[in-house]
Amino acid sequence: MKAYGAEFIGTFWLVLGGCGSAVLAGGGIGTLGVSLAFGLTVLTMACAVGHLSGGHFNPAVSLGMWAAGRLPVARLLPYIAAQVLGGMAAGAVLYLIASGSTGFDVAGGFAANGYGEHSPAGYSLVAALVTEVVMTAVFVLIILGATSAGADKRLAPVAIGLALTLVHLISIPVTNTSVNPARSTGVAVFAGEGALSQLWLFWLAPMVGAMFGAAIYRMLFQREGREQTQGA
Amino acid sequence: MKAYGAEFIGTFWLVLGGCGSAVLAGGGIGTLGVSLAFGLTVLTMACAVGHLSGGHFNPAVSLGMWAAGRLPVARLLPYIAAQVLGGMAAGAVLYLIASGSTGFDVAGGFAANGYGEHSPAGYSLVAALVTEVVMTAVFVLIILGATSAGADKRLAPVAIGLALTLVHLISIPVTNTSVNPARSTGVAVFAGEGALSQLWLFWLAPMVGAMFGAAIYRMLFQREGREQTQGA
Amino acid sequence: MKAYGAEFIGTFWLVLGGCGSAVLAGGGIGTLGVSLAFGLTVLTMACAVGHLSGGHFNPAVSLGMWAAGRLPVARLLPYIAAQVLGGMAAGAVLYLIASGSTGFDVAGGFAANGYGEHSPAGYSLVAALVTEVVMTAVFVLIILGATSAGADKRLAPVAIGLALTLVHLISIPVTNTSVNPARSTGVAVFAGEGALSQLWLFWLAPMVGAMFGAAIYRMLFQREGREQTQGA
Amino acid sequence: MKAYGAEFIGTFWLVLGGCGSAVLAGGGIGTLGVSLAFGLTVLTMACAVGHLSGGHFNPAVSLGMWAAGRLPVARLLPYIAAQVLGGMAAGAVLYLIASGSTGFDVAGGFAANGYGEHSPAGYSLVAALVTEVVMTAVFVLIILGATSAGADKRLAPVAIGLALTLVHLISIPVTNTSVNPARSTGVAVFAGEGALSQLWLFWLAPMVGAMFGAAIYRMLFQREGREQTQGA
Repeated sequence: MKAYGAEFIGTFWLVLGGCGSAVLAGGGIGTLGVSLAFGLTVLTMACAVGHLSGGHFNPAVSLGMWAAGRLPVARLLPYIAAQVLGGMAAGAVLYLIASGSTGFDVAGGFAANGYGEHSPAGYSLVAALVTEVVMTAVFVLIILGATSAGADKRLAPVAIGLALTLVHLISIPVTNTSVNPARSTGVAVFAGEGALSQLWLFWLAPMVGAMFGAAIYRMLFQREGREQTQGA
Repeated sequence: MKAYGAEFIGTFWLVLGGCGSAVLAGGGIGTLGVSLAFGLTVLTMACAVGHLSGGHFNPAVSLGMWAAGRLPVARLLPYIAAQVLGGMAAGAVLYLIASGSTGFDVAGGFAANGYGEHSPAGYSLVAALVTEVVMTAVFVLIILGATSAGADKRLAPVAIGLALTLVHLISIPVTNTSVNPARSTGVAVFAGEGALSQLWLFWLAPMVGAMFGAAIYRMLFQREGREQTQGA
Repeated sequence: MKAYGAEFIGTFWLVLGGCGSAVLAGGGIGTLGVSLAFGLTVLTMACAVGHLSGGHFNPAVSLGMWAAGRLPVARLLPYIAAQVLGGMAAGAVLYLIASGSTGFDVAGGFAANGYGEHSPAGYSLVAALVTEVVMTAVFVLIILGATSAGADKRLAPVAIGLALTLVHLISIPVTNTSVNPARSTGVAVFAGEGALSQLWLFWLAPMVGAMFGAAIYRMLFQREGREQTQGA
Repeated sequence: MKAYGAEFIGTFWLVLGGCGSAVLAGGGIGTLGVSLAFGLTVLTMACAVGHLSGGHFNPAVSLGMWAAGRLPVARLLPYIAAQVLGGMAAGAVLYLIASGSTGFDVAGGFAANGYGEHSPAGYSLVAALVTEVVMTAVFVLIILGATSAGADKRLAPVAIGLALTLVHLISIPVTNTSVNPARSTGVAVFAGEGALSQLWLFWLAPMVGAMFGAAIYRMLFQREGREQTQGA
């Protein structure tokens, strides 16, 4: 039960902190500040509760961990459920806070992900798909490597958190950066029809990317013998 | 005595560094730079004197530590006194420096916290209250987790400092971010009537938030058996 | 084979993340954001796969490691080949993504390096040469020091990654910052004639700088006796 | 001799990286970027050569270390000489690079420190003096604490580097931030008469501040018994 609580709280913080910084402060802190905020949610919660659950906070990461033999299959769906619920709880708290400002209008996007007309810089569906697949694949590969038996795992929360910052520095203009279906879902349910109608891509692409990342990692880098179950 | 000195100096630096960056350099470094500065005050002082006192530098954190069984009750009030005195000393030094610039006017806010008409982006009392309660709750939860027996405590100063940066990235537009009554008090006494008349909220909300954070932590994550007293 | 895979993937990520942030998001995140992105590519991949190959991701670093006796000569050319291929693969993926935006035009530079009329701020060939030599020399010296037997190597991925951020903070206006021939080559092949005609400088200067850095390190700081082969 | 080489190289990098980022890229990266650059020079060199010399790179830090019993008196003047020479060598290299841009004019300040009419935001002599004394005192106190026997010294390079970033985030508008006489001297000799005529303050105030910081540390926090000589 501690593990599910950790995934709920961690994903709550990822969405509240990352999307919250964008919705409440994005005009002041810019793309750089929002990228930093997303990464710091993971860095801080990985340090705080990562030892209880592995610190995924992301259905794509959990899928990748399962694909790499690091998460028992029986935990996969409960993890994803806890993550999606945490993300939606954060969306609700953020909506409550944001609506306390006179200037608030959900039509501003509410930090939802999108492609085509909902892409921040007008990137096509194909560009969005490639971006989300590649970004998630590398993100999962970094997580698998930084938590592998050969690496110095003590830096893993820093490496994984800052990897998420980096992914945002690259791809916010393309899709507003998902690489995390729970993050996309948590705000899409409050952001209106446009976001909901495109939500499929932000489940499909990160999940496919995670499988790619895990496959590449196993192919190129997997050490012989058994890795410990439940990584990150 | 070393512990009280550490809390005094640490809170002095938190207010001088965080509010000082805002008052002296805020126009140049923006919300992102001020957020970074607040976090770095805690990161640096936690590394320097955290081993002497636990490195709270914040009455709400001390309350949360007490509520989680990590600070003896006899230390709670002296810690808070040292923190408030450190914050006010910093306010005085900052006032001295800032008044050496021809353009200085305390009506610019002096980095005080506020809601309603004193909120940087016009957020309501309710939004400010929710924000400060939630931000402090998660901040205290991260501190409790990152310094718990199960976590790798060596990264705790980094995680806790950057958690404070993250909290500022999210909530500066709402309340100018307190989550710390000593920080609010340290500048409010120099910032004039508006700040003083709203100061109650920045004691109430962080203290309530800290109790929530500690309660959630104990409910979801507390490990069996005794934790060591005096954490962070 | 794992080492070559690590160098391929790491350099792929360096070019995709660093140049990608510049091409896709540079207008929003600015020089500071791009500098951070380059550094984080190395920080994250050094944590993920650095233990497999040393984590060079840069022909100049591999040359410097060889010159300091840390890389067997038989590995030097295969490492460089893997790095250049990884960089070009990243250039191709980046081109694919970037061309999905209506506003994309490779004439914008595609994050290529340059001097004279291709220098971001119009720096001369001599200034560019001096800058790339000095920056690479210090970068290699930091890598050699941070991974030496006397240092605490656990912080090396952080130190080396942030050293690359720092090098970019200083020198983006001069040459768009190379210090890495694989990074320069990976985008030059897509950036058109101007970049290709100046590419020689971004092989010559970093390679010379790396030899200088290794020589200075050996002269001033080399410890007596044998250092372990294959550093970083 | 290794120690003096380390202090020379480290201070060379501090001035080249910190002042170089300001002179070459300051318009693009702003006060936040320059602050980050100064801190990263110390973080990276402390990781690379800090174990050879203590990693001071600053006459005020060496003075504070001596005052706290961490540096033998016989090393104080040679350390300071190496630092000043390293700073001036960096000033020369920076001048060479910067003069390769058509827009370069040393009247732009060349990142020199100043007060009154040479203060970036017009701060008075008294404000400048107080700022430099207080900032150096806290900086030295953080160094003494983060490298003390009770602290986890492994994070010291991160804490000390980011403390320097923080000091710059606060005080660039006041004096362009010195806290380091070698940094001030290294560029003043190239920046013309105005900088040279005010250089006395940037020797006096940091040196006084370092003595204060060491005195406060000894009074409040010094542990009983012998500390190891040669800290940082």
